[in-house]
Amino acid sequence: MAVCEILSIGTEILLGDILNTNAQFLSKKLAEMGISVFYHTSVGDNPKRLESAVKTALDRSDIVITTGGLGPTADDITTEICSKAFGFELEYNKEIAEKICDYFKRRGIEMSANNYKQAYIPKGGVVFDNLSGTAPGIGMKKEGKTLMLFPGPPYEMAPMFENFGRDFIKEYSTATIISHQIRTIGMGESQMAEICGDLLENENPTVAPYCKMGEAYLRVSAMAENQEKAEEIMKPFIDEIKTRLGDYIYGIDCNGIEFAVVELLKKHKLTVATAESCTGGFIAKRITDVPGAIAIFKHGIVTYSNDVKEKAVGVNPLTLKTYGAVSEETAKEMASGIRRVAGSDIGISVTGFAGPASDEEGKAPGLIYVALDAPNFSLCEKINTGRNDREYNRYVSASRALNLVRIYLLKEVNR
Amino acid sequence: MAVCEILSIGTEILLGDILNTNAQFLSKKLAEMGISVFYHTSVGDNPKRLESAVKTALDRSDIVITTGGLGPTADDITTEICSKAFGFELEYNKEIAEKICDYFKRRGIEMSANNYKQAYIPKGGVVFDNLSGTAPGIGMKKEGKTLMLFPGPPYEMAPMFENFGRDFIKEYSTATIISHQIRTIGMGESQMAEICGDLLENENPTVAPYCKMGEAYLRVSAMAENQEKAEEIMKPFIDEIKTRLGDYIYGIDCNGIEFAVVELLKKHKLTVATAESCTGGFIAKRITDVPGAIAIFKHGIVTYSNDVKEKAVGVNPLTLKTYGAVSEETAKEMASGIRRVAGSDIGISVTGFAGPASDEEGKAPGLIYVALDAPNFSLCEKINTGRNDREYNRYVSASRALNLVRIYLLKEVNR
Repeated sequence: MAVCEILSIGTEILLGDILNTNAQFLSKKLAEMGISVFYHTSVGDNPKRLESAVKTALDRSDIVITTGGLGPTADDITTEICSKAFGFELEYNKEIAEKICDYFKRRGIEMSANNYKQAYIPKGGVVFDNLSGTAPGIGMKKEGKTLMLFPGPPYEMAPMFENFGRDFIKEYSTATIISHQIRTIGMGESQMAEICGDLLENENPTVAPYCKMGEAYLRVSAMAENQEKAEEIMKPFIDEIKTRLGDYIYGIDCNGIEFAVVELLKKHKLTVATAESCTGGFIAKRITDVPGAIAIFKHGIVTYSNDVKEKAVGVNPLTLKTYGAVSEETAKEMASGIRRVAGSDIGISVTGFAGPASDEEGKAPGLIYVALDAPNFSLCEKINTGRNDREYNRYVSASRALNLVRIYLLKEVNR
Repeated sequence: MAVCEILSIGTEILLGDILNTNAQFLSKKLAEMGISVFYHTSVGDNPKRLESAVKTALDRSDIVITTGGLGPTADDITTEICSKAFGFELEYNKEIAEKICDYFKRRGIEMSANNYKQAYIPKGGVVFDNLSGTAPGIGMKKEGKTLMLFPGPPYEMAPMFENFGRDFIKEYSTATIISHQIRTIGMGESQMAEICGDLLENENPTVAPYCKMGEAYLRVSAMAENQEKAEEIMKPFIDEIKTRLGDYIYGIDCNGIEFAVVELLKKHKLTVATAESCTGGFIAKRITDVPGAIAIFKHGIVTYSNDVKEKAVGVNPLTLKTYGAVSEETAKEMASGIRRVAGSDIGISVTGFAGPASDEEGKAPGLIYVALDAPNFSLCEKINTGRNDREYNRYVSASRALNLVRIYLLKEVNR
């Protein structure tokens, strides 16, 4: 199987100014093509280190893809250094110079002399048009090795790869790796590893666990000569995992619990409304991240103060006084209140201490109640993340509130 | 100056399943300490390639920091391979085994036998406590070289670096690089480059522009023998930029427009409430991302359907019929309506087409109105991002709605 290395170029990466999303994007695409990525490397705009890095990469990989350093400024040295390392000489390309000229004219921006630098292209290389910027990409092939140079901005790099890069390396795509991600909520990574431990040692398909923001996932990946065969290899494993993990699984290849919940609600033709205290609108935001959420979500209220909890969703002042705002009782009244106000089928709510601890004297950050109210049904879950991490606590409690909708539909509606 | 390499370990990175945020985090911290990062490398959970990568890294750098592969499962091989490459032998550490045991007990989770694997530690190494998980980190020193092993989950790695890692390598910190980020909203990157172009060529401090989610930033960075000197070098540049960019600047070293706005509202002792259609709770979520937001935000409503726009914030049905839900008129009535309902000093609202285009037939995704209502003051801004990108459109319109609060305070309250 062909091996690829992704070489990201730019001092801004090594300073931590930008996050290297290009390496992730390309890795995903290459995996889909059945090309193994064995290394990601990032180097700065330094000629010596770049030359050494590209030579090492060409030595140990069949395909090397660089991103960054194709711009017009003096520190953009990728084309020069990489072409030389590959044994290709630069020459001035009139056609590209004219295209760059055109790009500036169309936008009514004055062009700087520097921009002509981008018109020097390695002789024998293939030029990839840049549909969203000025720096063209370049592809080179020689003695079984391929070197592709892409621009750094993700919105230039991604369409260039899709339109030209993928095709340029298609001969390496002999096998196909297909992956499915099985997502669970409500169980820890080690609990999952215990239940599925024996599967993790399998070779094809591979089964790998990982954990993210309070959820545990399993990725099942198979390599085969085509997609159909890969799916065939995976099926018994996925079925086995489904049996073992059961209702902990909320989705396969799903973008998140909000996507699973919106789909379920659409299927059952039910609507939901939200009353949020500690998540402050995050649940509503996540529901409406899903295109077409309007079909199941019409109304949400952020009841951040006690006063609004009483006025907007009718929480009893006595409840707040007796049990406090962060309590099962308040969470339940918020859920039934928003369901009544919104006239929805289901109401969900969150109230808790998100942290940081210093803001909420004497209170345990991570103590959160999520509740659901539906006709003749009510459910409340107490969460204790044990973490003083506002972002984590808000994300996890929003997820768990959304998960209550799934539990309700499993228990009551699907019976 | 000391040179560092960051080695990220995990097949999930090479498959593109996760984004390598650890490398960015560590790079930022090392830059602040005046330690140069020359390489980022990512390798999978493969013993041979990991061994080769860690040896190469130790060869060319003074400090090597690894992240990932310290977990309890069979594919977690970092401690074993890296200790061997460094010439240190593993031994069972009873104290750590007990700590891991305790961690599970406290959380009431059953411990799996696998977890004991994490108690094997290289002899001569220093153990870094994991405050948010079970896998301890490890620091090793030998013949002028330092190797530090950190866990992969960012919420475990980051506090471990701050609490133990930074101190472990403090002897390498000779110079200091200090940066300040100047954030603007409402101007494009090229407009900013035009106004500040001459400053971008300076050597110390450096001034670098960049653009993110509809905002344009300038990063000013100075290197000096200590923090005070670095600040002294930067001051005239920052003052000059402030003069040139004026009210476009909403913050320096600020986490986002929501942080700037919450601070301003606190200062002026004013409250805000939100009525959101296309952003669906995102503004409320961003306001409540800020610890202590309760002082200025008590009430928000997601008025996703026309029906709720009428009932919950009193938009006139005739307005909706005559001008449509996505119009200046509706935006303004939403802003004044939420202000009335919430009894707040300021009301802000958003209504628009977030996309994707296919969901909203014949409508231009990216056409969004944001409005603000305050005593004897009203303001509406029409935004047209021209992009069919739901995430971008929702983020940018939430930012611009928040920015209206800033504009109002600048124009009316600060007069």
